[in-house]
Amino acid sequence: SAELARATDLVGYKTYLNRVDVRPGQQVHASDNQVESERACLALDLAKRGARVTVVSSGDPGVFAMATAVVEQAADPQWHDVPVRVVPGVTAANAVAAATGAPLGHDYAVVSLSDRLKGWDIIEKRIRAAADADLVLAIYNPGSSQRTTQVAQLKALLLQLKSPETVVIQGRDVGGPTETVRTTTLGELDPGTVDMRTLLIIGSSTTRVLARSGGDLSFTPRYYRS
Amino acid sequence: SAELARATDLVGYKTYLNRVDVRPGQQVHASDNQVESERACLALDLAKRGARVTVVSSGDPGVFAMATAVVEQAADPQWHDVPVRVVPGVTAANAVAAATGAPLGHDYAVVSLSDRLKGWDIIEKRIRAAADADLVLAIYNPGSSQRTTQVAQLKALLLQLKSPETVVIQGRDVGGPTETVRTTTLGELDPGTVDMRTLLIIGSSTTRVLARSGGDLSFTPRYYRS
Repeated sequence: SAELARATDLVGYKTYLNRVDVRPGQQVHASDNQVESERACLALDLAKRGARVTVVSSGDPGVFAMATAVVEQAADPQWHDVPVRVVPGVTAANAVAAATGAPLGHDYAVVSLSDRLKGWDIIEKRIRAAADADLVLAIYNPGSSQRTTQVAQLKALLLQLKSPETVVIQGRDVGGPTETVRTTTLGELDPGTVDMRTLLIIGSSTTRVLARSGGDLSFTPRYYRS
Repeated sequence: SAELARATDLVGYKTYLNRVDVRPGQQVHASDNQVESERACLALDLAKRGARVTVVSSGDPGVFAMATAVVEQAADPQWHDVPVRVVPGVTAANAVAAATGAPLGHDYAVVSLSDRLKGWDIIEKRIRAAADADLVLAIYNPGSSQRTTQVAQLKALLLQLKSPETVVIQGRDVGGPTETVRTTTLGELDPGTVDMRTLLIIGSSTTRVLARSGGDLSFTPRYYRS
């Protein structure tokens, strides 16, 4: 994009920076995945000293990604004069939805399953609220190498609230080189197949899957009867 | 995009088709805004007869837009063999969020305020659920020339559930030629300034606005304390 081409410095998680064309003269600041706030401070500090910095993220940087980390840090008075601009992208929920049809065509909620920055009580409350209101759910950060129990907890919770026939879509690395998308049901969902690169879509009571000659298409109807 | 360039036929709402470069030989089928299902049937019918059809939508076609209408109609056996593929885009919620910072950086819900295809009881239930769970809300289709009371109803409902100081962002025609974004509060929100081209973001209890030298930046912190 134009922002990448104009940058003097690129900051980001190394896996995402590896997908970017680096131009001659650009400084690349690659980091591990766990240190969003340090990455944000580095970017703001470089910019304060005159660099034109692009922070590289995947999907939409504003959804459980780097934009929030940068804007949070930008609240610090030392960076009051550093201009910050967020360039939107296609977030994983919409990319996975498109790969399988239109399951987000009706009201939905977007919830991160990570309890690194909030308690499980909050996550459970939000999952219950979404299920009660029959919203489709898009689940980010379902698990990681350190967090291996949340998807099983989510499944057990949802089975108290929704039919085991509820449509579930697992999208992994969508838009990336190893993209896979599969459609299953809540009852059949295998938590062992869900990792940190997976986005889950849990249907509402009306979400359907059409078996068609060109492959399955899922959708949530636009109509909803009270 | 590549899909537009390869199409033999373009189908869509005339305002969106006017923003597209039509190539020599392409047939353009422009329509009014209210007839999504007719547009979808036209597209599927043309495709069945051998055309390569692109249905043009704004934002992400999978979010309150044409993809769902097309996939719904594709359930009809007469179109069983017509291949359908959805190309994702940046949906209005993410575009408006980026224009103002990162207000969707934490859990959120996406709800259409149109009662054309569902009852107001369902809308109210979903708004209440989202507010109870302290989700940020992205509101699509807040009103139109025929629907002029919903934003005032939404404001009255939310004032029972949330602080009048809650951050509200009004984005209008974001990404289009007459883009405007403004930040206000729930108590100050003027329903008369919200029309069908407006997307509303209603903050959670933690959403903040930073007054900075380059303009306001809003965000919802990644941390959430129970």
